[in-house]
Amino acid sequence: ADSVRLLISGEDRPGIVAAVSTLLQEAGANISSLDQYSTDPEGGRFYQRTVFHLDGFSAARPELERKLDERLATGLGLTWSLRPVAQLKRVAIFASKSDHCLLDLLWRHRRGELPMTVSMVISNHADLAEEVRPFNIPYFYVPVDKSDRQAAERRHLELLRGNVDLVVLARYMQIITGDFLREVEVPVINIHHSFLPAFIGAGPYAKAKQRGVKLIGATAHYVTEDLDEGPIIEQDVVRVKHSDTAADLQRRGADVERQVLARAVEWHCEDRVARDGNTTVIFL
Amino acid sequence: ADSVRLLISGEDRPGIVAAVSTLLQEAGANISSLDQYSTDPEGGRFYQRTVFHLDGFSAARPELERKLDERLATGLGLTWSLRPVAQLKRVAIFASKSDHCLLDLLWRHRRGELPMTVSMVISNHADLAEEVRPFNIPYFYVPVDKSDRQAAERRHLELLRGNVDLVVLARYMQIITGDFLREVEVPVINIHHSFLPAFIGAGPYAKAKQRGVKLIGATAHYVTEDLDEGPIIEQDVVRVKHSDTAADLQRRGADVERQVLARAVEWHCEDRVARDGNTTVIFL
Amino acid sequence: ADSVRLLISGEDRPGIVAAVSTLLQEAGANISSLDQYSTDPEGGRFYQRTVFHLDGFSAARPELERKLDERLATGLGLTWSLRPVAQLKRVAIFASKSDHCLLDLLWRHRRGELPMTVSMVISNHADLAEEVRPFNIPYFYVPVDKSDRQAAERRHLELLRGNVDLVVLARYMQIITGDFLREVEVPVINIHHSFLPAFIGAGPYAKAKQRGVKLIGATAHYVTEDLDEGPIIEQDVVRVKHSDTAADLQRRGADVERQVLARAVEWHCEDRVARDGNTTVIFL
Amino acid sequence: ADSVRLLISGEDRPGIVAAVSTLLQEAGANISSLDQYSTDPEGGRFYQRTVFHLDGFSAARPELERKLDERLATGLGLTWSLRPVAQLKRVAIFASKSDHCLLDLLWRHRRGELPMTVSMVISNHADLAEEVRPFNIPYFYVPVDKSDRQAAERRHLELLRGNVDLVVLARYMQIITGDFLREVEVPVINIHHSFLPAFIGAGPYAKAKQRGVKLIGATAHYVTEDLDEGPIIEQDVVRVKHSDTAADLQRRGADVERQVLARAVEWHCEDRVARDGNTTVIFL
Repeated sequence: ADSVRLLISGEDRPGIVAAVSTLLQEAGANISSLDQYSTDPEGGRFYQRTVFHLDGFSAARPELERKLDERLATGLGLTWSLRPVAQLKRVAIFASKSDHCLLDLLWRHRRGELPMTVSMVISNHADLAEEVRPFNIPYFYVPVDKSDRQAAERRHLELLRGNVDLVVLARYMQIITGDFLREVEVPVINIHHSFLPAFIGAGPYAKAKQRGVKLIGATAHYVTEDLDEGPIIEQDVVRVKHSDTAADLQRRGADVERQVLARAVEWHCEDRVARDGNTTVIFL
Repeated sequence: ADSVRLLISGEDRPGIVAAVSTLLQEAGANISSLDQYSTDPEGGRFYQRTVFHLDGFSAARPELERKLDERLATGLGLTWSLRPVAQLKRVAIFASKSDHCLLDLLWRHRRGELPMTVSMVISNHADLAEEVRPFNIPYFYVPVDKSDRQAAERRHLELLRGNVDLVVLARYMQIITGDFLREVEVPVINIHHSFLPAFIGAGPYAKAKQRGVKLIGATAHYVTEDLDEGPIIEQDVVRVKHSDTAADLQRRGADVERQVLARAVEWHCEDRVARDGNTTVIFL
Repeated sequence: ADSVRLLISGEDRPGIVAAVSTLLQEAGANISSLDQYSTDPEGGRFYQRTVFHLDGFSAARPELERKLDERLATGLGLTWSLRPVAQLKRVAIFASKSDHCLLDLLWRHRRGELPMTVSMVISNHADLAEEVRPFNIPYFYVPVDKSDRQAAERRHLELLRGNVDLVVLARYMQIITGDFLREVEVPVINIHHSFLPAFIGAGPYAKAKQRGVKLIGATAHYVTEDLDEGPIIEQDVVRVKHSDTAADLQRRGADVERQVLARAVEWHCEDRVARDGNTTVIFL
Repeated sequence: ADSVRLLISGEDRPGIVAAVSTLLQEAGANISSLDQYSTDPEGGRFYQRTVFHLDGFSAARPELERKLDERLATGLGLTWSLRPVAQLKRVAIFASKSDHCLLDLLWRHRRGELPMTVSMVISNHADLAEEVRPFNIPYFYVPVDKSDRQAAERRHLELLRGNVDLVVLARYMQIITGDFLREVEVPVINIHHSFLPAFIGAGPYAKAKQRGVKLIGATAHYVTEDLDEGPIIEQDVVRVKHSDTAADLQRRGADVERQVLARAVEWHCEDRVARDGNTTVIFL
């Protein structure tokens, strides 16, 4: 049977769960998983993720969409989208010189752990081309001239537009402009090498060493115009000691970075992440 | 509005979620939380926990129960139960000489962290009576004569029957017989001082020290006739070092024990735990 | 045999370990534990914690101190101190209305987990007097008039001076002035309810909820004049979910707070913490 | 300056630390790190790891070794060894079809995280040869005929003898015989895919699923003749949910396996692990 995800969001009101489940039952679908969350039982925002099985989904889709429009959009003022599980998200990974996050995503993908298609790797350096080659994924070297950042971004957009559903910044050490975010029209996930909001900005490991923290962390978040301020998808930490140098922190942190980024990408690709203003709802 | 939990279990089949949500909508209820899990999409066992708000639940209850019987029990072969959130579970805590798990439960309860009523403390020693007194909870000292274990259990049953919905063994160091479990007719939760199934039986910290493990743990589980083999509700671990003595392990372990037990009791009291054979489904 | 701790700090230079161990061997002492750390092999600051056993330490002490002065202070420019393990630190605990950190310390102390003497509890509220009574520790209610903070601090100093070796702020919700810190002349440990340096200042749980972090934490640190900027002793975190309210965060955070504070107090009382500028060296 | 590790073990007795540090000072060495541990202050076994800097170590070595023999071996009955930090351990990695532990070690090694030389990869399958090639490490395919296990082991020993200081079983799915262990004459580290001693033997993830545990783990240990019973070097766990299938557990477990194995190999290569009977002492 075809497996499909139905994502719903909007203002909370009574009867949404019943409306959705009835609609799906009428279509002959069997719900295999249903999660919902309301930010506030009284007048909050409502999010629902439903996975259902339906034989012959393609044929049934137009009628299903018509009903979703009628009952959810028009009737209840909700936003909805249907995503067949088999239709993998197409992902572009941006990297610079650090290989750990990039390679970890490629390995996990090759092992079948990440339900996505890696469409391309884009880097402002040629260094990692050799390491990416065995994975048979196109590697585009797009140097960034800081005095003409727009030139690189135009090239990025040419490569990306229409070809990807997600951009992942796997320790890509260049500024992403608001213009790029608006034009790329797909979500952008970044891995920040600190437990945000601690140590915002550059050099977090040096700052962590200086402050003498006992744990260091990493944060995966959606990129917005405000640097390091986007909605957090996942975070984790690792214990460090006074004897760890800033280089040790960087090395230990690298392990956390790649795990946190892998989880965030996996969850996004499985439609488990809903953005709620500047925070996220994670359906696990 | 009255808040009520509806718990459902049985063989999985299409349409359960729709049937439940439609039924609740007809009753004017607003679903605030719905979790379900099927052990297998094809022919598995189905579990659902629904929380709904319904003004005037008491008046509406008979009609709701009639429909649940008709549509879920008769129609779909499911087992269901309704539990008003305001109707707290009544709990008896058994302890021996160790105070950490007992006191932690009493503290958390006093702070409002555990949605339960502590009906009584039962101990085979008088030692902890003094510490329990400030909490204003009856303390019953029931010595256990190992040659006549039944005498103590008869006394336990006299105290418990009709008065409690849950028994918590907070480091109660006496054997619980199968007869007692059958007659008490309420669930019994135990905290075992190891990460089960490692170090089953007595003296787990000494065994852990001898084996040289690098983490020690604790396990909260429902008690069944097979010692240490009941369905696991929650587990956690803490890191230890080669220089920790067996006494150090015991001390560090005590912290894990009380946290793990508190979580298990909280989840059980909020009807978040469904037993599925010898395992549990936890709705968080 | 008497067990004694010898603490040394100063500029690193060759031969310190040999000088100390030779000196102790001459005295007939047996080293049971030795930890040292240098911030930099070339010209860094050096810290050493040594535990030794010496029968008849009291009689031998003057001669030992003479040699320590001669060889370590005069000879190598180091600072040293001797602390018999049996000579417990005397501790004053400050609290306000929250009981979790205070009770956890008192209870661990009663269980023998914290090698200290609790000399007194001081609070700006009378609320917790009842809960402290069973522990047989003096409870001083010292209200704080915000327009005359100095009056309360004078009263504090009268109670503390000469009587305690450590002040622990166990969720004491009043500002500590620089004057007080200078005059009290013993270290002051505070528990901050966030993973510093994230969410500095008041209301960290509300801020954490608003920012949508996936982990919340607690930080035990020495108090300095700069609020929340003192040397960090210990930190830990716990995972939270999008559905946790700010009240849930506070409740989960309370568990982390009491564990982190207990570890920091234990380590300080065992002379395991050396202050190195605005950071700490922890010998575990 | 040359950096050297001095490892000492034997029966504990007074004066060992002083003897060692005096001896090193006489040689003009500067101790940069010293850790020691005694299993029992009275008559226990003693372990010490000292790192020192000594210009012109090679020239000074014979005299140093003579004194170590005289004062530590003859004088105090201790066993000692000197290991220049620059003299990396030579490692052979055994693998079968799973690539995650193997690739993680190779990749960390390339990043400079593991102070070792990877001399060869040995596998009973040809599958991973392609993935190993970019690392420029010899890959020996040695098929194992279960009816003549000795033939393969003879081939292993021909490859290993004199060439390696450590064998790492990176999910190598073949039995290691006692004969091989005796003849290979170097330590062998294995990664077991469970939190030992839970789920000893084959199929731990399936057993974990069946038992309903809430955490799964991995264990790195030295291999002895008793399967899964050797001294544990490192362990860790990860949280799992009721909805995780045995395949999910395997996938989540793989992450823990590679981290635990990498830490164990790093510690062994830095001489941080001392075997104490069937347990280990870890100097961190």
